[in-house]
Amino acid sequence: MKTWENNVRKVEPYTPGEQPKVNGIIKLNTNENPYPPAPGVREVLKNYNTDTLRKYPDPAISNLCEALAEKYKVNKEQVFVGVGSDDVIAMSFLAFFNSDEPVFFPDITYSFYDVWANLYKIPFEKKALGEDMHIKKEDYYGKNGGVIFPNPNAPTGLMEDLKDVEDIIKNNQDVVVIVDEAYVDFGGKSAVSFIEKYDNLLVVQTFSKSRSMAGMRIGYALGSTKLIKYLNDVKYSFNSYTLSNLAIDAGVAAVKDDEYFKNTCESIVKTREAAKERLKDLGFTFPDSMANFIFATHRSVSAKDIFEALKKKNIYVRYFDKPLIDNYLRITVGTPQEMESLYSALSEILG
Amino acid sequence: MKTWENNVRKVEPYTPGEQPKVNGIIKLNTNENPYPPAPGVREVLKNYNTDTLRKYPDPAISNLCEALAEKYKVNKEQVFVGVGSDDVIAMSFLAFFNSDEPVFFPDITYSFYDVWANLYKIPFEKKALGEDMHIKKEDYYGKNGGVIFPNPNAPTGLMEDLKDVEDIIKNNQDVVVIVDEAYVDFGGKSAVSFIEKYDNLLVVQTFSKSRSMAGMRIGYALGSTKLIKYLNDVKYSFNSYTLSNLAIDAGVAAVKDDEYFKNTCESIVKTREAAKERLKDLGFTFPDSMANFIFATHRSVSAKDIFEALKKKNIYVRYFDKPLIDNYLRITVGTPQEMESLYSALSEILG
Repeated sequence: MKTWENNVRKVEPYTPGEQPKVNGIIKLNTNENPYPPAPGVREVLKNYNTDTLRKYPDPAISNLCEALAEKYKVNKEQVFVGVGSDDVIAMSFLAFFNSDEPVFFPDITYSFYDVWANLYKIPFEKKALGEDMHIKKEDYYGKNGGVIFPNPNAPTGLMEDLKDVEDIIKNNQDVVVIVDEAYVDFGGKSAVSFIEKYDNLLVVQTFSKSRSMAGMRIGYALGSTKLIKYLNDVKYSFNSYTLSNLAIDAGVAAVKDDEYFKNTCESIVKTREAAKERLKDLGFTFPDSMANFIFATHRSVSAKDIFEALKKKNIYVRYFDKPLIDNYLRITVGTPQEMESLYSALSEILG
Repeated sequence: MKTWENNVRKVEPYTPGEQPKVNGIIKLNTNENPYPPAPGVREVLKNYNTDTLRKYPDPAISNLCEALAEKYKVNKEQVFVGVGSDDVIAMSFLAFFNSDEPVFFPDITYSFYDVWANLYKIPFEKKALGEDMHIKKEDYYGKNGGVIFPNPNAPTGLMEDLKDVEDIIKNNQDVVVIVDEAYVDFGGKSAVSFIEKYDNLLVVQTFSKSRSMAGMRIGYALGSTKLIKYLNDVKYSFNSYTLSNLAIDAGVAAVKDDEYFKNTCESIVKTREAAKERLKDLGFTFPDSMANFIFATHRSVSAKDIFEALKKKNIYVRYFDKPLIDNYLRITVGTPQEMESLYSALSEILG
């Protein structure tokens, strides 16, 4: 190792789900939406005046902040937009978690949280889920440097009651609390209404799941004007121009089409509920997901074996080779047709 | 101030140049390219299959890394891509500047460097430019935690000899040295050839200036495989998916059209050289810029007065209200027509 390498930040990066480049596979491994983005998004792209790309985009991302503010009935100063919710949360860790006390999050949760904490050398403490895989709210009441949890949680898919979410916020008013609602639009209930009451609450959402725009990279956060101002200060200290005007315009088109949004979310919920029946019949058990995926374990065949057998049949689901969850598969809810292919494949594998 | 605010990172963010939303102005304030992106970029957008946006993009940004590797005759493992060169440099500060010794950069330079250093609490030391506004290379030979400078420098526009650049690298082999070449394509000479010899050298470039794609947000870095691996580890610990597939495809189209790239760069160089004559005749002096802007001071009228008078005439140039440079204007090289309007306006103002 050379001397210059001593000053390099050594990290264990997050491993994203596979993005295979082959065609013809059924991709149920990264919680993508099986439906295309709202039709307005296509119009934005097709009619885009490419010449304007020579100019920098609007650093304040005003049009999209306004559209989101209108949707959530808040002021646009209460909206922060970033390059996917990962970017929003990465900035939030940097902006808000600067304490010597540990940040609290669940032990089974989005596996990026400890990666961000390690990146910035933020102390953290993982709190075990209950037997039922639910978050035990009292575990989050101790002295800490901040709290973050997804609701619904990933990869369990379980939704915590808004009353319990509020209890966690209420008991943590001296730190920033982040509720990561990447999966809230599939039947969950948002904590957004609490941002008026608790100025230390940040609610993070994304266009990657319910708005079918993972490829466009748009995430956002809602919070008090003060909290959002702090977050923007850090953003402007990192990269002034994060979203292209194209992404901003496409995002606005998606937000404006509430009907399409509701319809596709409803379709996914319907497919998910049907999937619960079918997977149960196939011998799986799982927490009662309110997200666009199901976190399932089989009564007799190991998750790893099923994962590999499915892959051979060109069906990709997500397998985490990690303690506590290494006998589970996270299966994204696809179209009804894709799910039928999954059930057939599973029948063959398990049969 | 509430208790939770104690743990917030307080920063003095970078102030980007104005992006006025009104039409009909002549915008010479943010070093944008006056010509549109390569025609292939328009084709990419027009023909884009919007449905694919539902999927995550390629986290490795492989196609664009390959296109850039081919252009610079390096391996694709020697290429890193980010959301504009600001994102690339922000990640690099985080990845590489983790020493107790100060990072060195010029006192008159890109004003984001000290913002990044402050964001991450990295110690730094600014080195004064010489009387002639050139970098004094010997100042960078002392014990430090890393070195960064632009070449050509901004906002002076001055190019340092590659021999001097190599001397700085040669004397700093125990730290990472970043050469920020945002403006190199307008007649400058790149340090890229040194990356094979010095594995601690990172050369950063951008699509925002010479490729007319500021609005698309693409920047990149070239370095040793080892250096790029470290940088990618930090990127994957921050945000796995930074560029949309649309941006990747558009970037590839731009890189492939070398003829268009050369022609537009040559046009800008020609306009810049003509501008030097005209500005001299109007009573300005300036360092001999090799970038797409001219950093000019007037013999009798203050920069601030000229800046404000030009703005009233709907011509925006950049004025920095900062010590050492507060009597200078940074004027982006526009089209010949835009420059004629500038000269007329200046004649009236100064006349």
